[in-house]
Amino acid sequence: MPSTSATSPNTAPGPFERLVALVSEDLERVGLVIRERMSSEHAPRIPEISAHLIEAGGKRLRPILTLAAARLCGYRGDDHIKLAATVEFIHTATLLHDDVVDESARRRGRATANILWDNKSSVLVGDYLFSRAFQLMVETGSVRVLGILSSASAVIAEGEVLQLITAHDLTTGLDRYEQVIRGKTAALFAAATEVGAVIAERPEDEVTAMRTYGDALGIAFQLADDWLDYGGSADALGKNTGDDFREGKVTMPVILAVQRGDAAARAFWQRTIARGQQGEGDLEQALAYLDATGALEATRQAARDEAARAIGALAAFPEGPIKTALTDIAEFVVARTV
Amino acid sequence: MPSTSATSPNTAPGPFERLVALVSEDLERVGLVIRERMSSEHAPRIPEISAHLIEAGGKRLRPILTLAAARLCGYRGDDHIKLAATVEFIHTATLLHDDVVDESARRRGRATANILWDNKSSVLVGDYLFSRAFQLMVETGSVRVLGILSSASAVIAEGEVLQLITAHDLTTGLDRYEQVIRGKTAALFAAATEVGAVIAERPEDEVTAMRTYGDALGIAFQLADDWLDYGGSADALGKNTGDDFREGKVTMPVILAVQRGDAAARAFWQRTIARGQQGEGDLEQALAYLDATGALEATRQAARDEAARAIGALAAFPEGPIKTALTDIAEFVVARTV
Repeated sequence: MPSTSATSPNTAPGPFERLVALVSEDLERVGLVIRERMSSEHAPRIPEISAHLIEAGGKRLRPILTLAAARLCGYRGDDHIKLAATVEFIHTATLLHDDVVDESARRRGRATANILWDNKSSVLVGDYLFSRAFQLMVETGSVRVLGILSSASAVIAEGEVLQLITAHDLTTGLDRYEQVIRGKTAALFAAATEVGAVIAERPEDEVTAMRTYGDALGIAFQLADDWLDYGGSADALGKNTGDDFREGKVTMPVILAVQRGDAAARAFWQRTIARGQQGEGDLEQALAYLDATGALEATRQAARDEAARAIGALAAFPEGPIKTALTDIAEFVVARTV
Repeated sequence: MPSTSATSPNTAPGPFERLVALVSEDLERVGLVIRERMSSEHAPRIPEISAHLIEAGGKRLRPILTLAAARLCGYRGDDHIKLAATVEFIHTATLLHDDVVDESARRRGRATANILWDNKSSVLVGDYLFSRAFQLMVETGSVRVLGILSSASAVIAEGEVLQLITAHDLTTGLDRYEQVIRGKTAALFAAATEVGAVIAERPEDEVTAMRTYGDALGIAFQLADDWLDYGGSADALGKNTGDDFREGKVTMPVILAVQRGDAAARAFWQRTIARGQQGEGDLEQALAYLDATGALEATRQAARDEAARAIGALAAFPEGPIKTALTDIAEFVVARTV
């Protein structure tokens, strides 16, 4: 999952901070709903585990997108609060299950729930939050919203299964990779923004535009993440550089490098990714291949194209501070270098 | 989870078989919807795993209850087919997650998905089926039905967490035990029958009666299971006798035996259940305490009372073969001795 930090190195607030400030009152109400609904009369372990994750400094990007979309669409009711909480519950449930699936030990700088408690609790508390998310949605009474978010949930689960299957599989093409990142990030981003337009009862073209913004932003986010995992370029080795390489993940940079590489390059990827045999100097060699084939630059360009698609989708909406912040977030997502 | 077999030792069809015959056409349509909806365009592992479980000879008691309730309420539409499939998907999703949580190796006589594939796939395919269940429900367009089934899902997840916490905990009282078995069995039984009455647009008292039937049948089922796990009586040691004892489960027989026992008995339960220290002859001693305190007989009586409550709830509905079969199933559930 992408880090959602968007703090600028200088002192001026970044686009994400500006958006948070614009919806801060709503966001406080979302926090209250989350705390109220994650409680369990009978099983106190549930809020313990949920709180560990929900209050661990997640940036709440997804619920903020729902709030911003609803406001941009001129919504004046209260259902956006419940839907923002719903979106955060679905996200938290997937994080709990992800950590079991990935056998993660740390998230957001803290030990994960599966380590602090156990896998069993992570699975079941995830299920609980998922059910609570659906209960919250039902309270809005909108069958359409329920359809959007249940479909997003199916795409998320399908994408995760697909990711399990594609690891170490060099026959993975760009189509399948897109399915994976849609499930990983874009499906919930798209649903989060779409429901804002739906509850505001905007015309269909605006609902589609709002959905497109979330979808494109999510894909841009994930492409940038996959690009950054290789340090952006061979010259800029960051501290997390190569995590995807070591785990044998078949992301866009690797797919392109395999497609564009010669026999020696393909043999290299077969050994290091497909068979997972890696040694000293292999990451540097990978970066050299990624640079030489233009695979990294092509990934970055694809991210920029998606950011442009996101910004283009905002054309239908009125100018103002929310639209400006959403535009700047899309630009920021692909401009970051760490 | 209870076994749902209801075959009589003689050749006449049992009440469950008679009910299956009464809804067999609908049940075939449910099977088609299940096969169609568990498929995944992108991730073929999903239907593989789902089919392994769904086609492994599960009796489909829950969807049959939905079909029977809808028919008994005079429903004439098609939504009961989708809702029956929904109920089976939710049940299958919980079985997949249960097997991860319980570290089970076998279910329905076959190796479990977590053994054949891995825990990761079981978690994610469970999530996928759960999302598909909600998508199916959304298609009925009934917000009320969505509310009933999302609430049932929350009670199921909450009950599972509670069961995790209550194992080996002799301070567990009958209240908490009831929450556990409601989550384990009764919540989905109750939702399965209630939605049948809701889509048939019956008056509120009939909706409540239909829900009560499912709830009471589910509790009766689970109480009978917990009674049978101790062989019914000290004289009738079955082959599965003592599974709950060995796993340190705190079920109704144990709760009553602790409450009614003397100091020696309480020390025995502390050692064997709370601390899990068990040796030769302990199961026999447990059975002796359970008999002497009347704990087993009281559990069986509680199961009979719940069966009577289920049958009583049917009073509001017209006589006929479906009502007769539902009545006989409630009687059968508490009469079985294996």
